[in-house]
Amino acid sequence: MPRAVNGINKRITFLRSPRGLPVPEDFGADETGIPKLAAGQFLSRTLYLSLDPYYRNVMKNSQIYADRLTPGDVMVGETVAEVIDSQHPDFKVGDVVAVRNGWQEYALSNGQGVRKIDPSIAPVSTALGVLGMPGLTGYAGTVFLAQPLPGQTFVVSACTGPVGSTAGQVARHMGARVVGIAGSKEKCDYAVRELGFEACVDYREGDLVGQLKAACPNGIDAYFDNVGGSTLEAVTLNLAMGSRIVLCGMIEAYSMDTPPPGPWLGPIVGARATMKGLVVYDHMNRLPEMTRVIGRWIHDGSFRWKEDIAKGLEQAPAAFCRLMRGQNFGKALVEVGSTKLGR
Amino acid sequence: MPRAVNGINKRITFLRSPRGLPVPEDFGADETGIPKLAAGQFLSRTLYLSLDPYYRNVMKNSQIYADRLTPGDVMVGETVAEVIDSQHPDFKVGDVVAVRNGWQEYALSNGQGVRKIDPSIAPVSTALGVLGMPGLTGYAGTVFLAQPLPGQTFVVSACTGPVGSTAGQVARHMGARVVGIAGSKEKCDYAVRELGFEACVDYREGDLVGQLKAACPNGIDAYFDNVGGSTLEAVTLNLAMGSRIVLCGMIEAYSMDTPPPGPWLGPIVGARATMKGLVVYDHMNRLPEMTRVIGRWIHDGSFRWKEDIAKGLEQAPAAFCRLMRGQNFGKALVEVGSTKLGR
Repeated sequence: MPRAVNGINKRITFLRSPRGLPVPEDFGADETGIPKLAAGQFLSRTLYLSLDPYYRNVMKNSQIYADRLTPGDVMVGETVAEVIDSQHPDFKVGDVVAVRNGWQEYALSNGQGVRKIDPSIAPVSTALGVLGMPGLTGYAGTVFLAQPLPGQTFVVSACTGPVGSTAGQVARHMGARVVGIAGSKEKCDYAVRELGFEACVDYREGDLVGQLKAACPNGIDAYFDNVGGSTLEAVTLNLAMGSRIVLCGMIEAYSMDTPPPGPWLGPIVGARATMKGLVVYDHMNRLPEMTRVIGRWIHDGSFRWKEDIAKGLEQAPAAFCRLMRGQNFGKALVEVGSTKLGR
Repeated sequence: MPRAVNGINKRITFLRSPRGLPVPEDFGADETGIPKLAAGQFLSRTLYLSLDPYYRNVMKNSQIYADRLTPGDVMVGETVAEVIDSQHPDFKVGDVVAVRNGWQEYALSNGQGVRKIDPSIAPVSTALGVLGMPGLTGYAGTVFLAQPLPGQTFVVSACTGPVGSTAGQVARHMGARVVGIAGSKEKCDYAVRELGFEACVDYREGDLVGQLKAACPNGIDAYFDNVGGSTLEAVTLNLAMGSRIVLCGMIEAYSMDTPPPGPWLGPIVGARATMKGLVVYDHMNRLPEMTRVIGRWIHDGSFRWKEDIAKGLEQAPAAFCRLMRGQNFGKALVEVGSTKLGR
């Protein structure tokens, strides 16, 4: 039996629903023993914790998410973990899995919803980013909803994050002219140089409507929206005829108690545009396909990604607060443990 | 030569852009001689003038419409007219045509964009309503954009108007369960008794969200939006999964200088809904098909309509102002002249 099994399990807990943007004080921390294995379960050690904006919505304890949190509960969240003990027929010690361990070092699982990760395709942390739910979001939203045609102009916001960078690179592979929207010169440079976007607009420079008009002189044929708010509005004022808008994330609104209004919809009518709501869970059956397609691009060097990794579970609250302020650069992760530890 | 040709031509003119809701004082009136015919033209006498909410937008003199108005210009508008003199090879005296004569008794035309009307299908006034642009709007938006399936719940606002009543009756013929939204008990009774809707909700009674929930217990699968604003918002809070929203008219906004915000778009994402902008001119090629389909239903008694007819051109401004306040009941028309007069 691995020695870690008798150790201590550090956890980050939910303390209270944030007011507006979250602060580290909205979280607590505690330690427990490592939970005991029962038949049909496996025990895993968390390697990476994924930080995702939707956690802010979960912390509202509204009814749209299955997870309901009581103060003191471990924060929910996706992780990549290593199986260190198992009484489950399908999982053996050493397997690396994508599992919802939450914000803690160790957790049990009955295997439901757990996905084994093939470390030969890419570093295992990508199972939380471009080869996980965020990547699938960008892939499915682009391929099945935004449907850019060759030569069309495809715009994506939060374009250096895992969803946006996947969406943009998939659109580029589909032959579209990709224009990103991001929040710093550094991010924009990365989008053009590393992700192969045609252009990238820094919304912090102001006049987003004018900047988009300059970058998209023939209008925007498809827009993958990760932020909502004024960015979405600026896009609606630059639409090409027959354009598609994929509504995916509204990060600004997650930290609001009352949802904000949307943009004036007149331009949607004028452009005969289509807005479509995207929820990634509808496209789970595409995960193997997406892994195959993007895995090939990773292998031939035509698909890139960036990670913003905080070291140590105790850094998770602060890292999450940075994410919600747009201060991360790349997929926000917390490295909780090192692979092969405990063996 | 018909005697009317040497008479007087009464006209209603554009005087100024309204502030907010239009008032009769935004219009002028004058008289001129009847214009002289040239080769390749025909002269027609207006029978019916169509009143349509989009005129309010034209009166803003924004750039989205081709018609630009200068004070003193004849108000633009669709009409049904009778050809009373012709030097055009395709039009002969006695033909009844749909033509953009504007708000006046007589006008010349070179035949461009003019459509001959077959009086055997229905009264010629319907060429401005259910068998004209409004009908085509309701037909195309329902058949090609909203696409209700048998048994699905289809909701339509402004449901006793020519667009809404066509949309709802087309959806009923497609097997959908149709729920109307209108602004009086009288209109709601008409929608259920005459148009064959399953139910109709009176938004003036308040709590539209709750009323729609009661009338659409399984959610709204398709919504044909003719009004925007708080009605659209109430619908978004009652969407079924995979629902479609057709954005067609935003009558409230036409009388505003600054466009209002749209609804919070979170429910669109949650319901994986699709919003589509509809502009009827994209579907002009469907006009013969629509006339055939609806003409058959008119013939077998399974399609009805209602007209709200003001008598006399001088009534047009007041009738238009009533329309913009939702005080009309049925397609708003002005009877300008009687058929066969002048012959």
